[in-house]
Amino acid sequence: MTIIGQPLKNIPWEEKPENCNEPMWRYSKNPIIPKNAIPSSNSIFNSAVVPYEDGFAGVFRCDTKARLMNINAGFSKDGLNWQIEHHPIEFKQAPGHDFIHSDYKYDPRVVQLDDKYYIQWCNGYHGPTIGMGYTEDFKEYYQMENAFMPYNRNGVLFPRKIDGMYMMLSRPSDNGHTPFGDIWLSKSPDLKYWGEHRFVMGTASFEESAWQCTKIGAGPAPIETSEGWLLFYHGVLHSCNGFVYAMGVALLDIHDPSIIIARSKPYLLTPEKDYECVGDVHNVIFPCAALSDAETGRIVVYYGGADTVVGCAFCKVDELIPWLFENNL
Amino acid sequence: MTIIGQPLKNIPWEEKPENCNEPMWRYSKNPIIPKNAIPSSNSIFNSAVVPYEDGFAGVFRCDTKARLMNINAGFSKDGLNWQIEHHPIEFKQAPGHDFIHSDYKYDPRVVQLDDKYYIQWCNGYHGPTIGMGYTEDFKEYYQMENAFMPYNRNGVLFPRKIDGMYMMLSRPSDNGHTPFGDIWLSKSPDLKYWGEHRFVMGTASFEESAWQCTKIGAGPAPIETSEGWLLFYHGVLHSCNGFVYAMGVALLDIHDPSIIIARSKPYLLTPEKDYECVGDVHNVIFPCAALSDAETGRIVVYYGGADTVVGCAFCKVDELIPWLFENNL
Amino acid sequence: MTIIGQPLKNIPWEEKPENCNEPMWRYSKNPIIPKNAIPSSNSIFNSAVVPYEDGFAGVFRCDTKARLMNINAGFSKDGLNWQIEHHPIEFKQAPGHDFIHSDYKYDPRVVQLDDKYYIQWCNGYHGPTIGMGYTEDFKEYYQMENAFMPYNRNGVLFPRKIDGMYMMLSRPSDNGHTPFGDIWLSKSPDLKYWGEHRFVMGTASFEESAWQCTKIGAGPAPIETSEGWLLFYHGVLHSCNGFVYAMGVALLDIHDPSIIIARSKPYLLTPEKDYECVGDVHNVIFPCAALSDAETGRIVVYYGGADTVVGCAFCKVDELIPWLFENNL
Amino acid sequence: MTIIGQPLKNIPWEEKPENCNEPMWRYSKNPIIPKNAIPSSNSIFNSAVVPYEDGFAGVFRCDTKARLMNINAGFSKDGLNWQIEHHPIEFKQAPGHDFIHSDYKYDPRVVQLDDKYYIQWCNGYHGPTIGMGYTEDFKEYYQMENAFMPYNRNGVLFPRKIDGMYMMLSRPSDNGHTPFGDIWLSKSPDLKYWGEHRFVMGTASFEESAWQCTKIGAGPAPIETSEGWLLFYHGVLHSCNGFVYAMGVALLDIHDPSIIIARSKPYLLTPEKDYECVGDVHNVIFPCAALSDAETGRIVVYYGGADTVVGCAFCKVDELIPWLFENNL
Amino acid sequence: MTIIGQPLKNIPWEEKPENCNEPMWRYSKNPIIPKNAIPSSNSIFNSAVVPYEDGFAGVFRCDTKARLMNINAGFSKDGLNWQIEHHPIEFKQAPGHDFIHSDYKYDPRVVQLDDKYYIQWCNGYHGPTIGMGYTEDFKEYYQMENAFMPYNRNGVLFPRKIDGMYMMLSRPSDNGHTPFGDIWLSKSPDLKYWGEHRFVMGTASFEESAWQCTKIGAGPAPIETSEGWLLFYHGVLHSCNGFVYAMGVALLDIHDPSIIIARSKPYLLTPEKDYECVGDVHNVIFPCAALSDAETGRIVVYYGGADTVVGCAFCKVDELIPWLFENNL
Amino acid sequence: MTIIGQPLKNIPWEEKPENCNEPMWRYSKNPIIPKNAIPSSNSIFNSAVVPYEDGFAGVFRCDTKARLMNINAGFSKDGLNWQIEHHPIEFKQAPGHDFIHSDYKYDPRVVQLDDKYYIQWCNGYHGPTIGMGYTEDFKEYYQMENAFMPYNRNGVLFPRKIDGMYMMLSRPSDNGHTPFGDIWLSKSPDLKYWGEHRFVMGTASFEESAWQCTKIGAGPAPIETSEGWLLFYHGVLHSCNGFVYAMGVALLDIHDPSIIIARSKPYLLTPEKDYECVGDVHNVIFPCAALSDAETGRIVVYYGGADTVVGCAFCKVDELIPWLFENNL
Repeated sequence: MTIIGQPLKNIPWEEKPENCNEPMWRYSKNPIIPKNAIPSSNSIFNSAVVPYEDGFAGVFRCDTKARLMNINAGFSKDGLNWQIEHHPIEFKQAPGHDFIHSDYKYDPRVVQLDDKYYIQWCNGYHGPTIGMGYTEDFKEYYQMENAFMPYNRNGVLFPRKIDGMYMMLSRPSDNGHTPFGDIWLSKSPDLKYWGEHRFVMGTASFEESAWQCTKIGAGPAPIETSEGWLLFYHGVLHSCNGFVYAMGVALLDIHDPSIIIARSKPYLLTPEKDYECVGDVHNVIFPCAALSDAETGRIVVYYGGADTVVGCAFCKVDELIPWLFENNL
Repeated sequence: MTIIGQPLKNIPWEEKPENCNEPMWRYSKNPIIPKNAIPSSNSIFNSAVVPYEDGFAGVFRCDTKARLMNINAGFSKDGLNWQIEHHPIEFKQAPGHDFIHSDYKYDPRVVQLDDKYYIQWCNGYHGPTIGMGYTEDFKEYYQMENAFMPYNRNGVLFPRKIDGMYMMLSRPSDNGHTPFGDIWLSKSPDLKYWGEHRFVMGTASFEESAWQCTKIGAGPAPIETSEGWLLFYHGVLHSCNGFVYAMGVALLDIHDPSIIIARSKPYLLTPEKDYECVGDVHNVIFPCAALSDAETGRIVVYYGGADTVVGCAFCKVDELIPWLFENNL
Repeated sequence: MTIIGQPLKNIPWEEKPENCNEPMWRYSKNPIIPKNAIPSSNSIFNSAVVPYEDGFAGVFRCDTKARLMNINAGFSKDGLNWQIEHHPIEFKQAPGHDFIHSDYKYDPRVVQLDDKYYIQWCNGYHGPTIGMGYTEDFKEYYQMENAFMPYNRNGVLFPRKIDGMYMMLSRPSDNGHTPFGDIWLSKSPDLKYWGEHRFVMGTASFEESAWQCTKIGAGPAPIETSEGWLLFYHGVLHSCNGFVYAMGVALLDIHDPSIIIARSKPYLLTPEKDYECVGDVHNVIFPCAALSDAETGRIVVYYGGADTVVGCAFCKVDELIPWLFENNL
Repeated sequence: MTIIGQPLKNIPWEEKPENCNEPMWRYSKNPIIPKNAIPSSNSIFNSAVVPYEDGFAGVFRCDTKARLMNINAGFSKDGLNWQIEHHPIEFKQAPGHDFIHSDYKYDPRVVQLDDKYYIQWCNGYHGPTIGMGYTEDFKEYYQMENAFMPYNRNGVLFPRKIDGMYMMLSRPSDNGHTPFGDIWLSKSPDLKYWGEHRFVMGTASFEESAWQCTKIGAGPAPIETSEGWLLFYHGVLHSCNGFVYAMGVALLDIHDPSIIIARSKPYLLTPEKDYECVGDVHNVIFPCAALSDAETGRIVVYYGGADTVVGCAFCKVDELIPWLFENNL
Repeated sequence: MTIIGQPLKNIPWEEKPENCNEPMWRYSKNPIIPKNAIPSSNSIFNSAVVPYEDGFAGVFRCDTKARLMNINAGFSKDGLNWQIEHHPIEFKQAPGHDFIHSDYKYDPRVVQLDDKYYIQWCNGYHGPTIGMGYTEDFKEYYQMENAFMPYNRNGVLFPRKIDGMYMMLSRPSDNGHTPFGDIWLSKSPDLKYWGEHRFVMGTASFEESAWQCTKIGAGPAPIETSEGWLLFYHGVLHSCNGFVYAMGVALLDIHDPSIIIARSKPYLLTPEKDYECVGDVHNVIFPCAALSDAETGRIVVYYGGADTVVGCAFCKVDELIPWLFENNL
Repeated sequence: MTIIGQPLKNIPWEEKPENCNEPMWRYSKNPIIPKNAIPSSNSIFNSAVVPYEDGFAGVFRCDTKARLMNINAGFSKDGLNWQIEHHPIEFKQAPGHDFIHSDYKYDPRVVQLDDKYYIQWCNGYHGPTIGMGYTEDFKEYYQMENAFMPYNRNGVLFPRKIDGMYMMLSRPSDNGHTPFGDIWLSKSPDLKYWGEHRFVMGTASFEESAWQCTKIGAGPAPIETSEGWLLFYHGVLHSCNGFVYAMGVALLDIHDPSIIIARSKPYLLTPEKDYECVGDVHNVIFPCAALSDAETGRIVVYYGGADTVVGCAFCKVDELIPWLFENNL
């Protein structure tokens, strides 16, 4: 049970605490990014990172003190201490794509594919939908056509083509605090026109796995492993006092990711730390990015806490996947 | 102000009543299709017709006595008296497309394009979205991939490509009795992958044009005219006792149909006849099809009445378009 | 396929119209009871009748012009022309039962069991629940304890004990216009204490049988037949403009009525006549009573129309049950 | 029991039908104003009339075919046949009052007081509130300040000052299809500044008088009688398929109209005619105006039917008031 | 003012802090049971304890990391330090009762009655209702018929029969996060069939006692005292950010517990500690069990905190009851 | 940029922390009033203070342990340490005003005007509206007529007449947890009759300034400055887990305060401290009072935290107003 990909020697890491019996554990110095890391920020959360040059680059959801949502670039040597730019990314029009305005941008994901770093985010264009762009150097950014019509959120591109097609997960939504939501897969020959939409996985029933019974959504870009695509995702339970966002994991077929091989019945992490339970939106763990080291099987997942800060958590692929099979829904 | 297209000498027609000052008038023998036109039907409404051979063919929404929704073919010599098949259309898998199941099919549109009659409908695949299929002879039918993910309704294909691209209108929705809805335009090189989604026109404000202030949706396939694409559409007002569906008309730019040239501030027809006011859903006029005669400028619009029956109404292009410019929102 | 019970030579009857292919047909002179049949009434509907002496007696839901809900007795020679008493039934305290107040009474059912005519209704006691009473002569009436706590509606007693136990169908509800509802079975040794509650049948899915996808509720007291208990019931579809109430039929196991033998996928009757589509609540057919003649297999079902009037419809058991098996959900 | 006021010899009148036992009866030729009485109208309803010169004048709610709401003047010789102006009233700024814009105007009331005809209506100024204006000749109209802030509807001015103060009834509301509503009384020294707001009467409980259990609102200007102010009002019941609007009557203390002397437990009229049950909003009777003849005690009430047309109904004060006392809530 | 019952020398106890003027005070080492007391648990709360042998036994709501709800047994020497079993209780079919499935079990209560320990819980059988079972030794458990149909919660059995009848409190509910709820009393001759349902006490008005204005529910089994049955209960206020659950106390008539002798206008405890304000459901104090010592009048109440942990609080009967009479609603 | 008014040498003050770049900073010893500052209190928050004699007086919202809402007087030497009276203010009837009952009183504001201290609060009189009273000595209090009908909240009187008229801000509301709300201005010649109501400022769009996109309401009495009236106000964002209340600032025209000169796009303070994020209502900062020193330009704002406690924050007018112009919406 191995990760298929590159080694990442400088992956952030902390060993599992002795008394921990769970497959995933939090970084002891969470949150790694506080709400006011830049002067204009009300909160920084639900953000994406990738290896870049000899360190790491990232795209961060930085809500301003007007509570407006935008995405800023950031850089780090160690993946834990970050310098986030004070101004949002400015996109140019991508060649072959018309300009699409953005009322807002939030919940970015980033993935390296071919020679580009592709960014997907929730883009405000007459409602929330999946915005797309890319950069080659984290200096110049190009915005492409939206992948879909509203209402959609949590668009997540695969890190490589499958059978010659680009693949993207997303979650059809409505125009409010959507009380439903399933994960879908779409294909594209060119990242511009999309089709062959397939239902991948829906909410679980209240009697089967209640933490994911209201809605679910893909998190980081899937990680290729010997057993299939490893997908961290969020699930939501609707209590009498609001939504609770927790994190789970699934394994998708390597050739046809619309096929679920396994899906965790228990969550991996649920809000229990102060920075997860108290903030602009209480009780939220929202994974948006992951780094993995194919050599050691180490994985670090970055997640938003309480819609306010960024934290991270660790696991190892050879421990996680057996756990997933044992705890398959 | 003329229709661009073929003559249709046998277009159903009835002259405007003398005392009528409106641009559109109902057929005096409405409804033309009663709710029980076939033994299994609870209701027949929101249906589509096209010229076919020396008469007309159509695809009809026939809800069964279990209130299940499906679409049946039908044929007519005069466009007013119809023989509707007792069993729903059975689709084969279209070449180059995978099989997509349908929990239900409703609100079909039909348009001739190239050498095929393309059918679009609301297709139940983990929620309502735009199903597509075609026939060349109204005997063999082929189902294609859904155009979009849920939740979407009122998919309407243009009768020809524009700049080499297929064009489709649709209305993003939610998974219930959607209380919002705007008209969008999408493009496809191949009727399989879709992109370049553009907002076309939204609801009007309550203070501007209240009959279309809750949601709107495209009706028949747009009719090409010398002034632009003529689009009949429905608009909805949410009264304290439910939705009221009325019909209006718009004119879209001939080269870029995401540009609105004109849009009617008043409705063309609103429910006032018994068969429009009383039925399975009270107060509904829902246009799904139109026939036009380029020679005379005559147009007949087919619409569902009270989600129960089919009626039709008449207008002339050289009277309608000036009225539209005078009554532009 | 026969009715097990008494002959009822004077059962109201009208032969099936020639052009009718359905198993149930309406009385041609519907509605049989107009909304203003007594001076105080706003509407008379959802009412119950039984054979009594050489004619028929009944308990009628008579809403007053203050729109208050109560139940009045009525009498008829032929089951079609009714004299309804101008004042509501006054109940005395049944021996062995404490007095229970009633904020309102509505939707009565009546069934002869042992030597009494038992009445069940929706009783307002800190919310709607199942009220019970009896009469032996339709002159003196005795009110018993409520069968259940709120919130419950559509309590329907079986016409005989099964295995020594009284049996009652009911529908747990909420305190408003309940948007859900399944049929349950409860047992009692003494008509005072109830238990062994069993889920009998729930709503159908939207994709299976949409007319009964929102809620269902038992109608008349079940009719004993050679094939099982014949149960007419109502089902509700929630359209964008409100509920539509239609009538279906099921067959329950003769020994254990919590077991469904068959259940109609299509409805038997849906609102389509003026007196069903237009009234205080549009689009309602609500069955509350049935008479049957074991000799001929004739059945007449009484139902409320549009929450305003009473109509009736006919069927024959030897035609209905085969239809039910053919149209089993 | 007499009306205090002027004789009105030409009051519209029709004797009570022989078989009618109710205190109010409909005009046999209702509706008196059809929905399309003027070319631009979608519907004409909820309108107000007063004696004027040797006939009658009125202010009519005329919704356009864009479903926009405005008020038009009209004139009649007999109070039954009306000529309605094709264009809405244009108001000038009243002296001493600033100009207030109106997004819409609806549900007018008119009352003669001092030497002016005062019009009150629901005025759209950042939400619905009570607009006011006056005319002396039904040619020149002057708009005053709104009486209150939003959200308010059904403002009804008394026909004379009481203790030197102007008095107005109104109903605080919300910004939608308000599901609650009570009648309030406010005072003003000058028709510009208002205070001393008093709760007058609220909804009845479901168990007392269900037709008025959701909301109530004043109808025509109160009529002065020997027993107090006679107030026709509407009450609303919320059925599972929407609101039902019916009409009742109350008697307010002549010196302090915040005191209720009597209030009808039953309604006077409830929707039962086609033009009341079917229209743009089904099941609505909405009284907005009344004429009375002090000599004979005759009263005619004008009301909107189904939010589509105008009807009227008759009663006599010496029959109505005793009925009210007998049927006091 | 004394407790009627057994002495309980080893009742957990801590004296009232000096600066406390309230009748109830928290244990200084709360929470006594953390959320992760057993490996599988997401949270442990809303649980029940009884004296057992020389220590205590209990039934604990242990939600798993899949957020599934079940009940586990646990044991303690001192009532404060608990060993909770890692696996849920497995019930056998009770003699004379059919097997009833449970989609879930939560919010248990336990009471010793005759020679058995009866457990009541919220049982998922086509919706939440009152499940029942018993044990004699906390090793073998027997499940009985559900007491009622759904939708019901907070079933609480009295610790002895009254007039030969078993008595149970419960709260009729709906199938969601019920926004209403009153306490009812039901009787049974045999714990299998239930009837004679009586309304006991409802929500208070917002103006009288707002902490209990949305819904209320019985907590621990009532404690017999010289003044009546002492009932701790929860009340809910619906703030703009969700429900707040607090604890109050009432005194019920010793012979007819449907009669309220006194009911606290203020709460006893409201969420103010971290473990009550922050957790899976913020702002919850939910009492489910109490121990009492007849000798000293000491009472300890066990309650769930924030739907996450278990805490306890202390009071003395001879201080509490006078406080209750002084603070009677 | 100066404050126009009196010096207030003993204004509470604390210098801005060195690392703070914001125009407003919290008091380091917040909260200044704990939830249980008086024996009966559940919480003390949303309260008003004024300079009085050689110290300060105030009117405090003190919710009781029955969660009933009332207002108590309090006194302080330094504006930070307060003695709050244990019993609510008892009002006498103001001369010239009738007695108005109060179901509850909350969210007081106090302003000195002429020779009186006027108190405005949310008064429960058949729904929430603006109650008014005054005192000259904080010993005798007089209650006046309510300013408006329900439903209204956040009434805030200006500290002087403008053009001879009293001026009041308020926010029309509905009868629940109002999900909308704009600030209005009303005028009165006598503090009894009000009119000339003007819309002042509404919610911002989600795309412009999301923290104030759901509703807004005036806070302390406006402070007169050389640039206009300085108004602190609250704005609300509706997250998926409830409302978040933050504080902003606006500048209104000195002669016509219905004209907005500037309005902050970012908030000044948003909940981030424990006493703002956790309490009876999580995530609330609600300003109700301010003190200002014309000599130094110092301002201290008092605000409720989490509907539980009182905190305060500081700013300087010559720093705040430039910030406001730079951050104008």
